[in-house]
Amino acid sequence: MTQVGVNGYGTIGKRVADAVAAQPDMDLVGVAKTRPNFEAETAARKGYPLYAAVPERVDRFAEAGLDLAGEVEDLVAAADVIVDCTPSGIGAENAALYDDHDTPAIFQGGEDADVADVSFNARANFDDAVGADSARVVSCNTTGLSRILAPLDETYGVEKARVTLVRRGGDPGQTGRGPIDDILPDPVTIPSHHGPDVNTIFPDLDIDTLGMKVPATLMHTHSVNVTLESDADAADVRDRFADETRLFQIPAGADIDGAGKLKEFAHDAGRPRGDLWENCIWAESITVEGRDLYLFQAIHQESDVVPENVDAVRALRGDADAAESMATTEDAMGVGIDY
Amino acid sequence: MTQVGVNGYGTIGKRVADAVAAQPDMDLVGVAKTRPNFEAETAARKGYPLYAAVPERVDRFAEAGLDLAGEVEDLVAAADVIVDCTPSGIGAENAALYDDHDTPAIFQGGEDADVADVSFNARANFDDAVGADSARVVSCNTTGLSRILAPLDETYGVEKARVTLVRRGGDPGQTGRGPIDDILPDPVTIPSHHGPDVNTIFPDLDIDTLGMKVPATLMHTHSVNVTLESDADAADVRDRFADETRLFQIPAGADIDGAGKLKEFAHDAGRPRGDLWENCIWAESITVEGRDLYLFQAIHQESDVVPENVDAVRALRGDADAAESMATTEDAMGVGIDY
Repeated sequence: MTQVGVNGYGTIGKRVADAVAAQPDMDLVGVAKTRPNFEAETAARKGYPLYAAVPERVDRFAEAGLDLAGEVEDLVAAADVIVDCTPSGIGAENAALYDDHDTPAIFQGGEDADVADVSFNARANFDDAVGADSARVVSCNTTGLSRILAPLDETYGVEKARVTLVRRGGDPGQTGRGPIDDILPDPVTIPSHHGPDVNTIFPDLDIDTLGMKVPATLMHTHSVNVTLESDADAADVRDRFADETRLFQIPAGADIDGAGKLKEFAHDAGRPRGDLWENCIWAESITVEGRDLYLFQAIHQESDVVPENVDAVRALRGDADAAESMATTEDAMGVGIDY
Repeated sequence: MTQVGVNGYGTIGKRVADAVAAQPDMDLVGVAKTRPNFEAETAARKGYPLYAAVPERVDRFAEAGLDLAGEVEDLVAAADVIVDCTPSGIGAENAALYDDHDTPAIFQGGEDADVADVSFNARANFDDAVGADSARVVSCNTTGLSRILAPLDETYGVEKARVTLVRRGGDPGQTGRGPIDDILPDPVTIPSHHGPDVNTIFPDLDIDTLGMKVPATLMHTHSVNVTLESDADAADVRDRFADETRLFQIPAGADIDGAGKLKEFAHDAGRPRGDLWENCIWAESITVEGRDLYLFQAIHQESDVVPENVDAVRALRGDADAAESMATTEDAMGVGIDY
C-alpha cells in the first residue's frame, strides 16, 4: 500500500484526498491545511488525519476544537508520495521540503512546468513519469485538451489545433471574482498559456489557443478546431471517442444544453459534490468539414484533474502501467458515464 | 433629398431614424411603431412623425396622448425608401406591402436571405445593391466579420476563416433573457448561421463558425482565426486595418479590457446611447502564426449595422458609390475613432 499525503485541502486537495482514500492500493496518510475552516472541519469528520500546514498556526486548530496529527513536515516524512494541492506558486515554495525528505511529489498545473521533472496526463504520457522524482499534473483545461488530442493524434494525426477557451470567471465558492456582465479577452495577447502548456505533454503539436473570461462559475467551455492529417468523418470520431472512459459524449436528445444541466445530471447521478471527472463533449457538435474537426466540450475545473493525480502517484512509484492505473482509478472512483 | 421611412422603432429602428435624420441628402418621413411605449414618446419629443404600425391599435396612441401622422401604409406610400426594422420574421410579412407601393425596401439580418434581392455590407458589396428593389443588411455579427474579411481578402487572400462567436445573452433592455451563470453552445450543431450568412456577402469564402451564449448583455465578442493565402505579419495587418474607418483598434495601454470599458469610453466620448458603430479590435490581440491570423473583436449588437442601413438607402437609389456614401454617412454620424 502506497502511503499518500495531501498538502493543501481546498478545491483540488479535498477531491484528491477522497479519490486516494478510495483506491485499493493506497492509504491516505493525512491532509495538511493552513486554516481550521469548514473544509478542515469536514476532513476531521471524515477521519482524515489533519496536519498544520503553517506551524505558527497550530494554536488556531486547537481553538477551533480540531485535533492535529502533526505539522506538514511530519506528513511529508510519513508519506511515500506527497500530492501538493496548494494554491499556484506555493507548490514551488514547498518543493525544497519534499526534496529534503526525498519524498516524491506531485504538483498542480498552476505551477510553472519546471517545478517538476515531467508534466503529466495519464492518457497521453503516463510512461514519462514512471520512476521520476516529481510530476506536475497539467491544469484542468490542458488535461481536457490532452485527453482529446491523444486519440486524435494516434488515429488521424494532428496537423494543427486551434482552440478558443471560454473560461469561467471563478469557482462557485470564489464569491469575490468577476467579471459581471462582460466578456473579456483573457489574456488579450495570443496565445493564452494553454497552448504552450499542451506542448509540455505533446512537444511537437502545432496548437494556438485563445482565452476569454465570462460571468459563469460552473465549468469552462472549449470551442475546438483540429485540422487532422488524414480523412475522418464525424461518426468515426464519435466511435473513437467512445473507447475513452474519460470522454463523456452528451447524447443528442438528453436536453443537456450547458453546464447547469450537466451539474444537475451529475448531482442526480449521486456524484460526490456533483463532480464531472470526464470531458463533457456535445456529441451533436462533433463535425468534420474537409479535414477540419470541430467540437464543443465543457470542462469541470474543480474535478477533471483528480483521477490524473491518482494515476500520477502510481506512475512515480512505477506500480502499474497506464492502462492498469487508469482502470484501477476509474473503478475505485466511479469515473466513466454510460448514458 | 431622399424621403426615408423607418418601419419599426425599437433597438435598431430608433438608431436608424437618428442616423437618417443626420444625413445631408435624406429626410426622415416618419417612423412606424406598434405600441405607444417609452420609445414612441421619445420619437414624438424628437419631432419624428409617428405612424401606427398596426391599424387596430390607433386608439391606444390617442389614449397615450401621442398624435399620429397616419398608418404604416401612408408612411410606405410617402417614402422613396423604407427601412424595415421590425423584429425577425415580421419583415418578411411586410414585404408585400412595400411591393404594393413599389417602395424599395431595406430589411434587417434577422430575416432570411431570400427576403431581398441582395444581402448587403457597405464595405464588401455596395455595388451589388445599386439599383436593386430591396436589400438585406446582414446581422451585427456578419457585418463585423465582413468588415475585416473584405480588407484581408483583398490584401492577402483568405484560405479559410474559423470564428468562435461568444454571444451576449440579450440586449441590456431584454430583462427576461438568459443564460444566468452558464456557457451554452448555441447552436450546439456546427456551423452556426453566421458562416452561411457571411457567404451571402462573400459567396466563395471558406468559413466555419461556432456560437456560444453567455451571461453578458453589452456586446458580442469574436475569437477570429483567418488562414491567409499569403504571408503577413501583425504590424502589416494593423496598418491595413488603420485605413478602415469602421474598424477601431483598441490601443494597448488604453486599459479597455472588455465591453464594459468600451461602453464607458463611448459614453465619455459623448456617443449617442453609448453606441459603438465600429468593430472594436484589441490591437494587442492581432497575431500572425505562420499564415494564421488571430484577433479578438467586440461587436456592439445594437448599433454596428446602423451606418450600413444608411449606405443601403443610397445603394438602392444609385445616388453614390460606396466610398462616397460611406464617407457621407460617417461624416454625418461621427463614425470613426481616432485614439
